[in-house]
Amino acid sequence: MKQSSPVPVPAVALPRGFSVHVANIGIKDDTDDVCIIASDVPASGAGVFTQSRFAGPSVNLSRRSVADGAVRAFCVISKNANVANGRVGAENADEVLKSVAGAIGCAPYDVVLASTGVIGRPYPMDKIRSHLHSLVYPFESTNATDAARAIMTTDTVAKVAYETVGEGNQQARIVGIAKGVGMIEPNMATLIALFFTDARLSPGELRPMFKSVIDKTFNCLSIDTDTSTSDTAAIMANGESGFVDRVAFVEGLERVALSLTKQIARDGEGATKLLTVTVDRSRDDAQAKRVAKSIVNSPLVKTAVHGADPNWGRVAMAIGKCEGDSDISPDRVVIRFGTQEVYPSQVDALGLERLATYMRGAEVTIGVSLMTGNASATVFGCDLSAGYVQINGEYTT
Amino acid sequence: MKQSSPVPVPAVALPRGFSVHVANIGIKDDTDDVCIIASDVPASGAGVFTQSRFAGPSVNLSRRSVADGAVRAFCVISKNANVANGRVGAENADEVLKSVAGAIGCAPYDVVLASTGVIGRPYPMDKIRSHLHSLVYPFESTNATDAARAIMTTDTVAKVAYETVGEGNQQARIVGIAKGVGMIEPNMATLIALFFTDARLSPGELRPMFKSVIDKTFNCLSIDTDTSTSDTAAIMANGESGFVDRVAFVEGLERVALSLTKQIARDGEGATKLLTVTVDRSRDDAQAKRVAKSIVNSPLVKTAVHGADPNWGRVAMAIGKCEGDSDISPDRVVIRFGTQEVYPSQVDALGLERLATYMRGAEVTIGVSLMTGNASATVFGCDLSAGYVQINGEYTT
Repeated sequence: MKQSSPVPVPAVALPRGFSVHVANIGIKDDTDDVCIIASDVPASGAGVFTQSRFAGPSVNLSRRSVADGAVRAFCVISKNANVANGRVGAENADEVLKSVAGAIGCAPYDVVLASTGVIGRPYPMDKIRSHLHSLVYPFESTNATDAARAIMTTDTVAKVAYETVGEGNQQARIVGIAKGVGMIEPNMATLIALFFTDARLSPGELRPMFKSVIDKTFNCLSIDTDTSTSDTAAIMANGESGFVDRVAFVEGLERVALSLTKQIARDGEGATKLLTVTVDRSRDDAQAKRVAKSIVNSPLVKTAVHGADPNWGRVAMAIGKCEGDSDISPDRVVIRFGTQEVYPSQVDALGLERLATYMRGAEVTIGVSLMTGNASATVFGCDLSAGYVQINGEYTT
Repeated sequence: MKQSSPVPVPAVALPRGFSVHVANIGIKDDTDDVCIIASDVPASGAGVFTQSRFAGPSVNLSRRSVADGAVRAFCVISKNANVANGRVGAENADEVLKSVAGAIGCAPYDVVLASTGVIGRPYPMDKIRSHLHSLVYPFESTNATDAARAIMTTDTVAKVAYETVGEGNQQARIVGIAKGVGMIEPNMATLIALFFTDARLSPGELRPMFKSVIDKTFNCLSIDTDTSTSDTAAIMANGESGFVDRVAFVEGLERVALSLTKQIARDGEGATKLLTVTVDRSRDDAQAKRVAKSIVNSPLVKTAVHGADPNWGRVAMAIGKCEGDSDISPDRVVIRFGTQEVYPSQVDALGLERLATYMRGAEVTIGVSLMTGNASATVFGCDLSAGYVQINGEYTT
């Protein structure tokens, strides 16, 4: 269940050779709104970004920064997305990048910039400029949790995950932080998800590993079908712990990304439950993901989950509306809530009562077998509550 | 603004040569749940139906009924969709069709059957059977408003529209009724929309006319992106008033369908406002419709409209997330609320206050010019309120 009051998140240290600076410069309120995480040495980097046509200058500049695979720092400005601000917005983003690079002593195109918050309002450049001019590097802190907190906008909890991978003296750590509670149906990445590792990996190795992990985690997440203009997921590997087993690394990275994905779903705007939908026995991965997303995004399924109503007819509806799936037949589909089959075998009144009890829990899983093949996909979302409407009807432009 | 208490809808008479029977047989409560509208003589008919893979037997049988273009009666059973009931559901639908046809004295495949309500629960056949066996034809009433009321499920108002078309002694009437407040993003038609005319039209003339009108009206409507398993739109033309001008007929039919489309949007579950989105200067009709639907379906736009917040950044976001529209550029797009441009020209504080006042009204229009061509589309929807969540979180299976 989502916490209504802030919960202390344990302090997680960044991997070896990373340090962090966080500060409040008063963009919106008195919570931290600037966060810079730097590697002591040049690092391999990779990133995936929103496919929105309204992508802001932060995304445009960061695409360029990761293109050569060399990255030194991530800079996040929160509470203001700097999107749809025209030429002024582009110039401001460029200035931020140059100031951060100057302080750290790297090239501007070794800095990845991410920014989220209100759209269509220019940065308060006086505040940002005077803060960055006084920046002292190296940074003193290595606390990833402070960084996770500094990148929050309307999130209610900081989102951190970490893993240690490898064995013996070939071990490395992977730390990820993420933010985002609304405008979330990532197309290439989610709002902001940043990963750090001290494993040694070349940019050429890192890039496909990162993309495949994001595809299975953040790209399977949807809070409200709305794709952000600022989606950014990026990783830095600085090699400070040397080489580790590649398979173990990818598995560890996937666990970190999956944990952050679920943390985001659970903290979705107004959410009270994590909703996981698994579609199996499908023709191919694309069909499984399309059907699963149709279910996890259906307002009628989401409100039924919110109301703890085992209304499987709405799941059937959401399967039925998928286009281009003429091989799906109502005569073969199987629908489950948790482990309980509800269609075609139907449950009696007692069984429905048991299901309602299950659905009052903090996690609800819906399973569908399409019987059109052997592929599968799992997607993550949340219920739709009156809280979502309240949060978004009152958020002032 | 949506009425919270039932409003008397004026009695509208069916066109010449149509009669109606309505009754309550106790499927859910004491409101009417059976409605049969028959033509005195064989009529031309056309219909468009849901593309859902989970379409029920009512839809399957009705597709067959309109295939030969000859129709005699429409039968609607409400409060139970008879969907996902397997073989029993199909047999029950077949029996209903035969009973109605027997009472009227026509072939079963001259009857169009539509049914909406809960999914996955068989018809109470004892009640339906005994009622249909006592059916007396011809029916005594010609009141279309009673029919509109009898097909309601969770609708709060009956939806009727009518037009008189043609001139002098070549006049005919068109009457339409519709129902539906949730699970509404019609793909070929909406939940239930039935049209009657005494104009003389061959099935071959009627079919393309009807399809083109539905494409411009009901297929531009979305309450919640959820496509019903029972969508049915059908028309009967019995020729009792002879020939009328074809152009005038199509224009009249479009006005009737458009009126019903707006009535449905305004009565959307939990809705307090009609939201109209017009996209123009687009590459083609499909692009205009895709972008307009992306805006009208965005939960963030819908909640902003609910909160009377002129948050044009969310409109930019909804444009930006459209896939396959690489010709859309933030540098050329224009966004308007009502007649006020908000992007790229921005409004000052006073202007924002004026816009908030405009958005507190019962109708909000968002206009977008894409500057990618000269096509356009208009779509209809409603705001997203806590009421939607409440209605759908508490609707019991």
